[in-house]
Amino acid sequence: MRPNNRLENELRDITIETGFIKHPEGSVLITVGDTKVICNASIEERVPPFMRNQGKGWITAEYQMLPRATEQRNIREAAKGKLSGRTMEIQRLIGRALRAVVDLEKLGERTIWVDCDVIQADGGTRTASITGAFVAMVLALGKLVDNKVLETLPITDYLAAISVGVMPDSSTILDLEYVEDSQAAVDMNVVMTGNGEFVEIQGTGEEATFSHKELLSMLNLAEEGITNLFEYQKQAIGDYAQLIDQMEEVE
Amino acid sequence: MRPNNRLENELRDITIETGFIKHPEGSVLITVGDTKVICNASIEERVPPFMRNQGKGWITAEYQMLPRATEQRNIREAAKGKLSGRTMEIQRLIGRALRAVVDLEKLGERTIWVDCDVIQADGGTRTASITGAFVAMVLALGKLVDNKVLETLPITDYLAAISVGVMPDSSTILDLEYVEDSQAAVDMNVVMTGNGEFVEIQGTGEEATFSHKELLSMLNLAEEGITNLFEYQKQAIGDYAQLIDQMEEVE
Amino acid sequence: MRPNNRLENELRDITIETGFIKHPEGSVLITVGDTKVICNASIEERVPPFMRNQGKGWITAEYQMLPRATEQRNIREAAKGKLSGRTMEIQRLIGRALRAVVDLEKLGERTIWVDCDVIQADGGTRTASITGAFVAMVLALGKLVDNKVLETLPITDYLAAISVGVMPDSSTILDLEYVEDSQAAVDMNVVMTGNGEFVEIQGTGEEATFSHKELLSMLNLAEEGITNLFEYQKQAIGDYAQLIDQMEEVE
Amino acid sequence: MRPNNRLENELRDITIETGFIKHPEGSVLITVGDTKVICNASIEERVPPFMRNQGKGWITAEYQMLPRATEQRNIREAAKGKLSGRTMEIQRLIGRALRAVVDLEKLGERTIWVDCDVIQADGGTRTASITGAFVAMVLALGKLVDNKVLETLPITDYLAAISVGVMPDSSTILDLEYVEDSQAAVDMNVVMTGNGEFVEIQGTGEEATFSHKELLSMLNLAEEGITNLFEYQKQAIGDYAQLIDQMEEVE
Amino acid sequence: MRPNNRLENELRDITIETGFIKHPEGSVLITVGDTKVICNASIEERVPPFMRNQGKGWITAEYQMLPRATEQRNIREAAKGKLSGRTMEIQRLIGRALRAVVDLEKLGERTIWVDCDVIQADGGTRTASITGAFVAMVLALGKLVDNKVLETLPITDYLAAISVGVMPDSSTILDLEYVEDSQAAVDMNVVMTGNGEFVEIQGTGEEATFSHKELLSMLNLAEEGITNLFEYQKQAIGDYAQLIDQMEEVE
Amino acid sequence: MRPNNRLENELRDITIETGFIKHPEGSVLITVGDTKVICNASIEERVPPFMRNQGKGWITAEYQMLPRATEQRNIREAAKGKLSGRTMEIQRLIGRALRAVVDLEKLGERTIWVDCDVIQADGGTRTASITGAFVAMVLALGKLVDNKVLETLPITDYLAAISVGVMPDSSTILDLEYVEDSQAAVDMNVVMTGNGEFVEIQGTGEEATFSHKELLSMLNLAEEGITNLFEYQKQAIGDYAQLIDQMEEVE
Repeated sequence: MRPNNRLENELRDITIETGFIKHPEGSVLITVGDTKVICNASIEERVPPFMRNQGKGWITAEYQMLPRATEQRNIREAAKGKLSGRTMEIQRLIGRALRAVVDLEKLGERTIWVDCDVIQADGGTRTASITGAFVAMVLALGKLVDNKVLETLPITDYLAAISVGVMPDSSTILDLEYVEDSQAAVDMNVVMTGNGEFVEIQGTGEEATFSHKELLSMLNLAEEGITNLFEYQKQAIGDYAQLIDQMEEVE
Repeated sequence: MRPNNRLENELRDITIETGFIKHPEGSVLITVGDTKVICNASIEERVPPFMRNQGKGWITAEYQMLPRATEQRNIREAAKGKLSGRTMEIQRLIGRALRAVVDLEKLGERTIWVDCDVIQADGGTRTASITGAFVAMVLALGKLVDNKVLETLPITDYLAAISVGVMPDSSTILDLEYVEDSQAAVDMNVVMTGNGEFVEIQGTGEEATFSHKELLSMLNLAEEGITNLFEYQKQAIGDYAQLIDQMEEVE
Repeated sequence: MRPNNRLENELRDITIETGFIKHPEGSVLITVGDTKVICNASIEERVPPFMRNQGKGWITAEYQMLPRATEQRNIREAAKGKLSGRTMEIQRLIGRALRAVVDLEKLGERTIWVDCDVIQADGGTRTASITGAFVAMVLALGKLVDNKVLETLPITDYLAAISVGVMPDSSTILDLEYVEDSQAAVDMNVVMTGNGEFVEIQGTGEEATFSHKELLSMLNLAEEGITNLFEYQKQAIGDYAQLIDQMEEVE
Repeated sequence: MRPNNRLENELRDITIETGFIKHPEGSVLITVGDTKVICNASIEERVPPFMRNQGKGWITAEYQMLPRATEQRNIREAAKGKLSGRTMEIQRLIGRALRAVVDLEKLGERTIWVDCDVIQADGGTRTASITGAFVAMVLALGKLVDNKVLETLPITDYLAAISVGVMPDSSTILDLEYVEDSQAAVDMNVVMTGNGEFVEIQGTGEEATFSHKELLSMLNLAEEGITNLFEYQKQAIGDYAQLIDQMEEVE
Repeated sequence: MRPNNRLENELRDITIETGFIKHPEGSVLITVGDTKVICNASIEERVPPFMRNQGKGWITAEYQMLPRATEQRNIREAAKGKLSGRTMEIQRLIGRALRAVVDLEKLGERTIWVDCDVIQADGGTRTASITGAFVAMVLALGKLVDNKVLETLPITDYLAAISVGVMPDSSTILDLEYVEDSQAAVDMNVVMTGNGEFVEIQGTGEEATFSHKELLSMLNLAEEGITNLFEYQKQAIGDYAQLIDQMEEVE
Repeated sequence: MRPNNRLENELRDITIETGFIKHPEGSVLITVGDTKVICNASIEERVPPFMRNQGKGWITAEYQMLPRATEQRNIREAAKGKLSGRTMEIQRLIGRALRAVVDLEKLGERTIWVDCDVIQADGGTRTASITGAFVAMVLALGKLVDNKVLETLPITDYLAAISVGVMPDSSTILDLEYVEDSQAAVDMNVVMTGNGEFVEIQGTGEEATFSHKELLSMLNLAEEGITNLFEYQKQAIGDYAQLIDQMEEVE
């Protein structure tokens, strides 16, 4: 039996609170069980040097955990003076995933900065970050549409992510919380779009391996879970959902 | 007339939410108007090298702002690879202030780490951090008393802080919010204890100077404001207030 | 038609030259087409602090490219003073993959350092690094067996990796060289063991997405390619192949 | 009785030697008892990026101690690769204080760099730095007036600083030397202008607190001491003193 | 008797393999006994900021050793986040030496980057780097002549380097390998041009000193050795040798 | 004619002021013309990790210039967060040179830290540093003898250094000041011991070369100059000169 008595294909309780912080163009507090991430999207009216004069925009993400987001206090990366490999991996993943559903030409020469700050961690922080970041980004871009800066929302589809895993007893489960994650033999993060395509699959045996069959089982769970996540996102973005639907039809 | 129609000696709305994050021994969300700071206190069962074998404890503080806590997004210090001078100044101030009301011998050879993470900034983040950090620290130490690790709360008095300033029209005001702070000719942060003594006074003319009379006027406002803050702290710490009262009698 | 007239499921020419550098316990130059990586394995008779006193060993990998391994000269990471996110990701991947086929208890309290230095890059440097690093590691551990330091080779299976991808024309191909990699819509790295299990799957849409069917097609190609790589590894490790076979029977 | 048999309101011996180093536009060796600081002022004909195109100048200060300025050798900050919080605090203080008496518009788009290098430390290095830096800055700006680059000295008033403190026996004293500073219960640095206004007050209880009455007593001592310092400054700057007097009349 | 039975004035076996890596404009693997260095020369069509608008070019060198180029594994400088003093000294030496035989005006506003990566070390890595770097640089510049970018080779003479030393038995020897270098009382690196002039002499007593007579004896050995090195260089650069001869006549 | 009307073999005015800073065990201000260096020697009662348990001591040197020691202000290395290659080269040179005349066994397991801080630069700062550092070191070690910590001065000989050079008119000159140094075709630093042996020779053509004959001419000038420097050192160290003479007889 799983902690919280969850079924193998059952997500934790999820809430997406919008307008969480007042300054950012888009701000969200996403809660997935006891994992809580503040996702703030900021618009900057220029692109980084390597993207200049291409008539295209850019999306970049940063990820961080509060030192005491975890059971043991972690040393602050700002105090250490450098980002860990884990942090770099995660923020590269978030940015790459978001870019898969944004039409960068339509965005124009501006940058969306997405900051994912984990204030409480209980497993699945990177997938919660992606799911929340998508909403924050839509809210920020929606504001540009509301203000007539952009004609349409340059979003081509929904985007959400979830973790799946194989436990030592060979069961495959959805949305691992920390105690499950620390025991899992295999851990996989899956990012998908609204039309059911994959954006990213990262499956890792933790001093273990996994079979083709286990892979397929995990993918099925992930697809099911992500389909649910889209519903939470739709509610959070409100009227902007219609703009995404229009955009999808065009594409 | 001040923003929010406040009187010169009027604090903003204040809330201190305890148990905000689940992992830390003491966790508080302090809200002072639109300034919001998460204060987490962690207990570590050892002291830094320079304090070893002295039979005493230590208290150290870290301070950080989310990149989009402010109107303009700030570059993350972890990404820059070093702390700014401002951050260092503030975290040194917080730690020093807290140590003024802790009996380090009674604390024993352990370290209290206090993390002050500003998630939304609207002026007075360092004083809100001190006021909230005191509560988080009491909650963490109170847990040690509850668990019989400590016999008594090694806290000698209450501790809170507020900002005061002189405006270009020569008025002196209490608890500056950001739009006031950016216009003020003089900015002063005052840290006081429950018995009305000063722990720290930092008054700075911003390309301006201030007279002896203005100084006294600011100190009066600060004393009045801080006295109010103690009431919020007492409510937040609940039964532990009695332990502080006992401790004060002993001293 | 692919560059070099390769079929979709065809590997590039592969050589694994052993004893390439004289000092390391295991040293290999692996050549995959025009990609050339020096893989050196060093044995250190202690483990990092977080692994001490557990009776287990550790494996850590480092990855670097010569500045002119690529068409454009890259700034040296040592000159920049920090590792890029890409480098960190890759060296974490290599270390994690190798640990999946080593019995860390049997290794004992020692560390294997595997250095993968790309001297010429033409796509697939991370998968070539894993494939070559496995051989270097076997040679280094084999020397410990030869010298009676270890009784048996603490290797539980073969390990190799290859890249697969989806091209803009929707074809799926094996072992992408640089010109293919830079055009691919989807890029996936697969790490497998000799018994046909997955250790790691990392599939990424490059501002694109991929379907379930494309995923399966890529996995098939990868499995076919990796099966061939094992043959090159067996030849390179010579007599040590028997020790691996014995070990696998035991497990 | 104080070390050196000083009265509570008595400064140490003070000398301000001008023209100490030949290259800087203004150079001073200030000696306050056994504390010796080289203060060099350099003029740069441009401003930092954040000040450009505002028709105003800027003043920035740097502070450092030789490793063996102190009884125990300190590790060089250049060797550690970062500035300590203490150094940052001090150099921010010096620059802020100097800016309070410079008319940045009259200075024009140029930067004054003030380097304060402590070659021997015996307490009060930050206040000696401010007092000496003011003289070095006047000398450098005076040279611009002599060379007809500036029409008038853009200095609005004198500026000097001193430390005061409360000792464990509750006495308040002026100009603490190291042995006093290390025992003091309260340490306060005061920066004032020639017209008797405060620029900065930084009072800190060292694991202690201080009363309103002690504060006033310290401020009185500081005011008395700083008034004396202005005489040393006047002598050091020679004829430029008249230019400051003229400027003050205008303001 | 020396290791390898060499005479005191005898070089180790030397090979210079050209075209070693495919991307760089000039690429060489130089082997001096068991010391192996990859020297890659890259042409960049601009100069660093401090050289701009002077109508001249620039040459800069970087030097690095693979972690396991040596008997003991060295920590990677990229992992440490900074270059060692030794590395900086060597790369400054290589760049300075190369600039002595290049006509920077004739080179025009472009930079030659020379990367010397030691893949196997057995003494004399810095002198092998200079000797190999010269060849790589000639090949890169020769390509510019072949492509009519430059009219003539902007090389004024040959350049090579060797180490000499004094052993504990007072013998002076040429081209020290590692076991000799670690015992030598004096170690000297000599860089010379084809016309027999010195470019650089760096002689160091290793907790020892050397006499005028020993100095002259070492210089004679060095001159003899370097004269031999020029023959290997001539063979490696092939037809470009004629262009150097022409250039020398002109000068 | 040279600046200051000096002859080719003429040193600048030299003074060595002892006891310059009060805290260090040995402290010297050496003045060579307008070059001024504070040399402080500190004794630490332990050795760095790589020297432990060998019954021997260690000597390490650090070198720095004040930002405005030069005509143009240099950015502080502590502010940049890293030492330049030039600084590293120089401090390695100073330490190595000093170690050549110290009997590390007799020194015992302690470290001598020598800090050379250039407060005013006019050419020859590294050689002035060595010459001054020797005196500071003797004073510090002499204090250990005075205090009976050491039985004898563990110094085997005098040590001094000077620069020589070849000018564009082919003249060779001694002790270059800055205007000469910036024009010189060849610059050489020579470190010698009291018995006329070389410790270090570093000769560099600055985009130029030098002949065997020019080398010998420079060495003669250097020997003459250094012989004079020993007289200044003897005066500075006073009675300790006898201890060095005794030590030399023993050796």
